[in-house]
Amino acid sequence: MADLLSEYQAPLADMKFLLNEMSEVPDSASSPVTNEDLFFILEQGARFAEDELVPINAQGDSEGCQFDNGQVTIPPSLKAAFRRYADAGWMGLSMPEQWGGQALPERLSVCIGEILTSANHAFSMTPALTMSACRALISHGSDALKSTYLERMISGQWTGTMCLTESHCGSDLGLVRSSAAPTSEGLYQIKGNKIFISSGQHDASDNIIHLVLARLKGAPQGIKGLSLFLVPAKLENANGEWSAPNNVHCIGIEEKMGMHANPTCTMSFEQSEGYLIGKENRGINAMFTMMNEMRLGASMQGVGLSERSYQKSIAYAIERTQMRSLSGIKAPEKEADPLLVHPDVRRMLLTQKVFAEGGRALGQFCANLLDETHQDNPDKDTIQLLDLLTPIAKGFCTETGLESASHAIQIHGGHGFVKESGVEQLYRDGRISTIYEGTTGIQALDLLGRKVLGTQGKSLLSFTKIIHTLCKTHNDNLVMAPYLSVLSRYSKEWPDLTMKIASKGMRDADEVGAASFDFLMYSGYVTLGYFWAKMAVTAQDILDGKREAIDATINQDFLQAKVNHAQFYFDRILPRALSHKAMMLTGKNSMMSSTEAQLTL
Amino acid sequence: MADLLSEYQAPLADMKFLLNEMSEVPDSASSPVTNEDLFFILEQGARFAEDELVPINAQGDSEGCQFDNGQVTIPPSLKAAFRRYADAGWMGLSMPEQWGGQALPERLSVCIGEILTSANHAFSMTPALTMSACRALISHGSDALKSTYLERMISGQWTGTMCLTESHCGSDLGLVRSSAAPTSEGLYQIKGNKIFISSGQHDASDNIIHLVLARLKGAPQGIKGLSLFLVPAKLENANGEWSAPNNVHCIGIEEKMGMHANPTCTMSFEQSEGYLIGKENRGINAMFTMMNEMRLGASMQGVGLSERSYQKSIAYAIERTQMRSLSGIKAPEKEADPLLVHPDVRRMLLTQKVFAEGGRALGQFCANLLDETHQDNPDKDTIQLLDLLTPIAKGFCTETGLESASHAIQIHGGHGFVKESGVEQLYRDGRISTIYEGTTGIQALDLLGRKVLGTQGKSLLSFTKIIHTLCKTHNDNLVMAPYLSVLSRYSKEWPDLTMKIASKGMRDADEVGAASFDFLMYSGYVTLGYFWAKMAVTAQDILDGKREAIDATINQDFLQAKVNHAQFYFDRILPRALSHKAMMLTGKNSMMSSTEAQLTL
Repeated sequence: MADLLSEYQAPLADMKFLLNEMSEVPDSASSPVTNEDLFFILEQGARFAEDELVPINAQGDSEGCQFDNGQVTIPPSLKAAFRRYADAGWMGLSMPEQWGGQALPERLSVCIGEILTSANHAFSMTPALTMSACRALISHGSDALKSTYLERMISGQWTGTMCLTESHCGSDLGLVRSSAAPTSEGLYQIKGNKIFISSGQHDASDNIIHLVLARLKGAPQGIKGLSLFLVPAKLENANGEWSAPNNVHCIGIEEKMGMHANPTCTMSFEQSEGYLIGKENRGINAMFTMMNEMRLGASMQGVGLSERSYQKSIAYAIERTQMRSLSGIKAPEKEADPLLVHPDVRRMLLTQKVFAEGGRALGQFCANLLDETHQDNPDKDTIQLLDLLTPIAKGFCTETGLESASHAIQIHGGHGFVKESGVEQLYRDGRISTIYEGTTGIQALDLLGRKVLGTQGKSLLSFTKIIHTLCKTHNDNLVMAPYLSVLSRYSKEWPDLTMKIASKGMRDADEVGAASFDFLMYSGYVTLGYFWAKMAVTAQDILDGKREAIDATINQDFLQAKVNHAQFYFDRILPRALSHKAMMLTGKNSMMSSTEAQLTL
Repeated sequence: MADLLSEYQAPLADMKFLLNEMSEVPDSASSPVTNEDLFFILEQGARFAEDELVPINAQGDSEGCQFDNGQVTIPPSLKAAFRRYADAGWMGLSMPEQWGGQALPERLSVCIGEILTSANHAFSMTPALTMSACRALISHGSDALKSTYLERMISGQWTGTMCLTESHCGSDLGLVRSSAAPTSEGLYQIKGNKIFISSGQHDASDNIIHLVLARLKGAPQGIKGLSLFLVPAKLENANGEWSAPNNVHCIGIEEKMGMHANPTCTMSFEQSEGYLIGKENRGINAMFTMMNEMRLGASMQGVGLSERSYQKSIAYAIERTQMRSLSGIKAPEKEADPLLVHPDVRRMLLTQKVFAEGGRALGQFCANLLDETHQDNPDKDTIQLLDLLTPIAKGFCTETGLESASHAIQIHGGHGFVKESGVEQLYRDGRISTIYEGTTGIQALDLLGRKVLGTQGKSLLSFTKIIHTLCKTHNDNLVMAPYLSVLSRYSKEWPDLTMKIASKGMRDADEVGAASFDFLMYSGYVTLGYFWAKMAVTAQDILDGKREAIDATINQDFLQAKVNHAQFYFDRILPRALSHKAMMLTGKNSMMSSTEAQLTL
């Protein structure tokens, strides 16, 4: 962020620190790509985002999408940027080489994902959804489907959607009513309406490939009766041209709080031709395969939101002068001191910063685990650890991303409420991130119910052991030792809390629901505490000469800042876990006692 | 809220409970108005808001204001509603009878203020600003100014503004550059540009009366060199018509996150004629007179935001079915259970509710104090207590109002992100409330620095004594006793914390700044704890027959809900004070240690 006038600069130094100094993955000659390769690509991605996506972000918001007579148009600047993005090969970053991808590791693509969101959240939607659709196809599609669709989607010639939600069901997919009926040719006819379909129709690609959850006649009720179908907007005609209509229509787009440059479509399927992906009635399994990756992607959106919010805010706090410092004039040559001298402004700035960098470290750790699970015969413990951390990353990093965006408005004062400053758009665009890909409440239930209690606490213990080991290993670190001892106590307390809730939950499952949100947030604060501790001891060890940096040119100020900001995290953020602990232990009674009548008086 | 389909119903039952059962003001025959009178007017106000303001709220947001060739037009529906509001006499509710007002107490006008914001935040701006301008005029204007302007402003024929902010100064009014020069006739010529002037120009009144902070030549630097001037947009011509131009121009309106139906104007004054209000160089004093009332008004906007957010959310949570209850099916006749069965949804709903009702009780208490200070020879302790509670009310209730609005979006899921649901507008409109009338950071410094430390803790001790007395008096209340004992501990801890910060602050004033936000929020949680405790013991005593309700028809479910929700407050909200306590005690170091270079790497 050398140039403060710049709107956004990708946090490459921090990303390199994570990849070089914090990574568990040895950058050995045996690895197919070296970190140097990754940095090279990362820099190209950063340049694309800074040069092509940042400048069109505000314009896309004010132009929005148009719906006219069944046709959707997106802002022309976004359409052009999408073509350049796809033509440069970015769609295939982590896709298999077989279909034109570059098969690069997730530890790179989480960085690119974060950068895209920071630069232009609305833009990032179409690529992200297309990649999700591709992943479902790769894991569960037939060879015929793969060979027909994947290459065109990975090239960005065609794009993809996920058609899950219906007007009466969002979180509760078991209620899906869209239907599918097999036809004589082994195909299926799909019928139903879907809402909230991001990029459901637009004018930036030649064809749109919908992945649709629907129910076969006679299938079981609930989510175990759902099947997943591939439904192209256009079919191949007799001449081999993909221009035959398939009765897939966009019947409207939503007016939304934000994300104006990405169309949110209501889609109608009327006896549209579809192809089964995976097995009948196993649609949810096909969905779950990619769920972890989608949620990890959403968590990086939260990180990107925190990062962009910080960058806007720090630039303003340095430039804007207002009031004198309480401890004496700091800029006598100016009529007032910069905002940065005021402790309360720093509180908000550093909150954004520790959420961005802590969340990035968590995301990078998860990406490493994900890369491991992509190997042959992945380790079961690795899968379990990733399963545990994913709802924490999604739930916590999107919640903290919103908090960061709100701080950005607050730091800008009245100017933050004005569109011109660009910060209110960050909040408006980001507001969806705690809702889609599973609301925070859903993540919380997934974490506490399925991932923690569902493994009898095993997955949690495997993580708290990692935390405990860090604390023990570095208890001679003079600077960080007091903080490590706090963290160590949390690593013991966390499983204890789980036991207490488990025992209440045995008697009444609502006790699990009543504790879940506070448990998620508690988990998030402790988890980021671990990553901040790890970053700080790594930085301090390099500063102290106890360990050699892999990047010999690493900036000493950068390392010192890591230690300072870890201290801020432990002083000013981690204590929030105290409240969440107290609240989750109070049980469900005061939450559930009032009747509907009492709530509507 | 009998009719769930209704968009908004003013919380009259709760307001009556506060006025009847919680008020310190005896409803005696000697009082000029009885509570029955107040309720009658309150019901009229509620009906006006529900019938006239609610239906035009979304429309006003989407239409917005227009700026064309120096002229500002507001949505026609708001213009018409303003006329009806003014013609019905609502502008003068708490204004002196001498100029056409009704001289009704503040304990009524805070209720009306809350209702207006809930119904239509953008609409509420012009009346509120006009009343603020009138108050400054009443307290500090000459008789000639009063007789020329007040009646026309109180009737709504003319409206008013507060012109404080300039592009380089918002919180820091000491930097104001607008200038004033006396002219031969004893008038002043005003010159300068002001930004963020709400209702600075519009087409709903015949004239606009600007109260402008400006600096006389040779005046001291900073806020002690500012004077306040009344500058009409139009002057009286020789024929006695108020149509002569005064070189007051709107040179643009802002595009904003929300409040689209209220114009935020950039105003230019070019040798405009102005009249001094109060004394030269004492403009800030004239401002401070009305500051408490303006801040109390803003706090009620936060309360109104929480209330409206709750009403939208509870209606949706009852109507919308999604997932089955974890503890077994609750609505077997439906395909899923209502959202209301899910503990985490209830957590968000009750959070909104306790912020609304707790904030309302705080606001009502402050209004009673304000009414007392309006008497002849007001008690000094009363003034000091009001001074203490005002920044808490403003800072805390607007912050919690925003939280409530964000919960409303979350409870509505994807639908909350869509404009049609109407909840995202609540957040967008409300987002300004933690910024204007002094940001939360400014309130926090005012509270800790001026009101608490500046009185050597005296004002705080007068309030903690009230809390302690409540806890002691009701320690035999079986239901509430455990909570009262918690509250009692807080009432002792609060001054202790103050001492600790004071002693650090003696050595380094930045320690006060570093603690201020957490101190404000801690104070807010404990303060609302007091009001929830008081409401609960009052309700419980009536339920137990220990005390007779003033309103004999009071609903038993309403009383039981008060007790239940107090328990929720103590279980699930008050523990947040634990974190704020821990954070404020960590001091400034980790906040202030990083250099600008380290923050911009």
